[in-house]
Amino acid sequence: MQPLALSLTDQIVQALLGITQGLEAPLHEPSFNGHEWAYVKDCLDSTYVSSVGTYVNRFESELTKVTGARHAIAVVNGTAALHLALLLAGVRPGDEVLVPALSFVATANAVAYCHARPHFLDSEERTLGIDAHALSSWLRSQTEIRAGVCVNRRSGAVIRAMVPMHVFGHPSDLDALMRVAHDHRLVIVEDAAESLGSFIGGKHTGTLGALGTLSFNGNKTITTGGGGAVLTNDDEMARKAKHWSTTARQPHRWAFQHDALGFNYRMPNLNAALGCAQLEQLDGLVQAQRDLHNIYRDAFDAIQGVRLLHEPVGSHSNYWLQALILDRDNASHLDEILEKTNALGIMTRPLWTPLNALPHFTDCPGMPTPMAESLAARVVNIPSSPSLLRRCP
Amino acid sequence: MQPLALSLTDQIVQALLGITQGLEAPLHEPSFNGHEWAYVKDCLDSTYVSSVGTYVNRFESELTKVTGARHAIAVVNGTAALHLALLLAGVRPGDEVLVPALSFVATANAVAYCHARPHFLDSEERTLGIDAHALSSWLRSQTEIRAGVCVNRRSGAVIRAMVPMHVFGHPSDLDALMRVAHDHRLVIVEDAAESLGSFIGGKHTGTLGALGTLSFNGNKTITTGGGGAVLTNDDEMARKAKHWSTTARQPHRWAFQHDALGFNYRMPNLNAALGCAQLEQLDGLVQAQRDLHNIYRDAFDAIQGVRLLHEPVGSHSNYWLQALILDRDNASHLDEILEKTNALGIMTRPLWTPLNALPHFTDCPGMPTPMAESLAARVVNIPSSPSLLRRCP
Repeated sequence: MQPLALSLTDQIVQALLGITQGLEAPLHEPSFNGHEWAYVKDCLDSTYVSSVGTYVNRFESELTKVTGARHAIAVVNGTAALHLALLLAGVRPGDEVLVPALSFVATANAVAYCHARPHFLDSEERTLGIDAHALSSWLRSQTEIRAGVCVNRRSGAVIRAMVPMHVFGHPSDLDALMRVAHDHRLVIVEDAAESLGSFIGGKHTGTLGALGTLSFNGNKTITTGGGGAVLTNDDEMARKAKHWSTTARQPHRWAFQHDALGFNYRMPNLNAALGCAQLEQLDGLVQAQRDLHNIYRDAFDAIQGVRLLHEPVGSHSNYWLQALILDRDNASHLDEILEKTNALGIMTRPLWTPLNALPHFTDCPGMPTPMAESLAARVVNIPSSPSLLRRCP
Repeated sequence: MQPLALSLTDQIVQALLGITQGLEAPLHEPSFNGHEWAYVKDCLDSTYVSSVGTYVNRFESELTKVTGARHAIAVVNGTAALHLALLLAGVRPGDEVLVPALSFVATANAVAYCHARPHFLDSEERTLGIDAHALSSWLRSQTEIRAGVCVNRRSGAVIRAMVPMHVFGHPSDLDALMRVAHDHRLVIVEDAAESLGSFIGGKHTGTLGALGTLSFNGNKTITTGGGGAVLTNDDEMARKAKHWSTTARQPHRWAFQHDALGFNYRMPNLNAALGCAQLEQLDGLVQAQRDLHNIYRDAFDAIQGVRLLHEPVGSHSNYWLQALILDRDNASHLDEILEKTNALGIMTRPLWTPLNALPHFTDCPGMPTPMAESLAARVVNIPSSPSLLRRCP
């Protein structure tokens, strides 16, 4: 019996089996340990389950308290929030929007819904977010300011906005990205879909850019079934977000007059009732995710060839999804790790396919993305539910 | 005391007060008298509240039984259903889509989401739906078939599809409209948002065209909070509708690969749980709405100058919203009726502003719409909740 003879894959599998206690473990399951049923039942009893009701206003109000944003506008999901935020950022048909190649597909799809084109960016290994240094060089070489806006010299299109995404809850390097955005006249829309409860220097992710977006999908730190929100400190953008998300109908007791192209994006009150109960438990859920990280750290620090992703210095991460990064020369283990763990009921998954490799985006502009491709071959998410903590000693 | 001296407005107000028993009456409130609590609680207990779960599949299956459609795809709301259906119908940027000027704004907005243009049509007084006879003349004079598609000679654009809407649950004249669609190579997408439980010659609305759409908003006959569905008998369209509504992600145990521009349109399981309970009560709810119609008929048949809208011959309407139509020379009473009834807590509302009069659609093509404008000045919806029936003798 020589423990040193275990392959890297088997060392990782053994460590995971120790923490999951050999039981099945989903990647991230919801935790309903508060007033979920009380609020949902109250909502049903009121019959106000749809786009009007007290819970949706309350949920928005509680979101502003939790995030420090001046305004939060609750919508049907994070994708709808991104779509609205990009429109509010002034994205027009034919524009380009800077988007990390490493993100969930919604980040780039929302750009396409505006009939604009995603312009893909490379990532950095430290945060898994946009590499600000590489981006700065890229924009200096490829763009120029004309009439106050950033123009892609090659395509001739206006680059209107940048969408940093806080991957797995870990804050991107917003300080550096905001400097780049300032130099190149770009509006920042923070995709904080994964980072509710994550802070940068005391400020909640999604509140540093002009606009931010949240998601409350079933796999997130808190869930509303389906849901999302737009965050902003700008009164006029908030007014428009609410207006456009409710079919742009002008207030009137009975007349149906709409003054712009609107959307049916308002979060239903039923989903907001669930959200209100969930949001009350946010601090505890984030703490559990952070505690789970410490347990994983103890298990993985001793294994050579792989490292557990930690929160970037100066930030406070919600540790929504725990992630292992294989060293470059161990990338070949990735498929085996995914096969063995999932076969055991321990749900793991790789990073997303880099978005610039998807068929509907292959013709889009962008910088070379060697780090995104390297990370996509080496990162694996491991079970991250707060409930997992209860299994651990 | 001379009853004959009562103005038309006051006769209508008196009739409504008799039926509402002098109590407040919303336009249409949900009725939760079945397994709503049980199913929603079960859904919460399962923790599967989001885009995966048993209720959403069951809701779709029950919808196919109720409507007779081969496939039903549950989505976040009726607007999303229309957007998907238009894409499935082949609508492309720059196309035109025939849409009634008299509809809720979502019908035309969904066309705009495809970066196509609504081409507005006039309505008929009998059904409040598209006037098939006027449309036929209009298309003969304005369009021609080129390479198998209908082209608007004036704009040069392809007219790809037609979206009949079954206003207030009353079926439009689909037989005649389908003949027009056939002659002009148009795909029919039926907007059945208001007509769940309404039939044309034994076929459920939304199942006669290539595609149909439903809404389960809070004001509809049944509600899921927010929700909608696409109906189709075409296997391939159904496959695409499901695929596109779930981010076009290719099935895989862990990899994220998307083969087309998709959407985050899947109905959450939480909302579907409510929908399953509601759908079980559909027959009773429709019967209540029909019984309420008979009570209104008794009240309004005696009043000169106004008529209650009845279901078109050959159809079975769900009577979702009861509607009064003032004679042309009594249109001036409309504002007074709206003012007096709403002041009494009896919710009434006029028809929508004709969509071709909205600022974001004024530049769109279309036929003259004198009947739509006339009806918009003469139609008023009156309280229509099934629960109102319990107040009536």
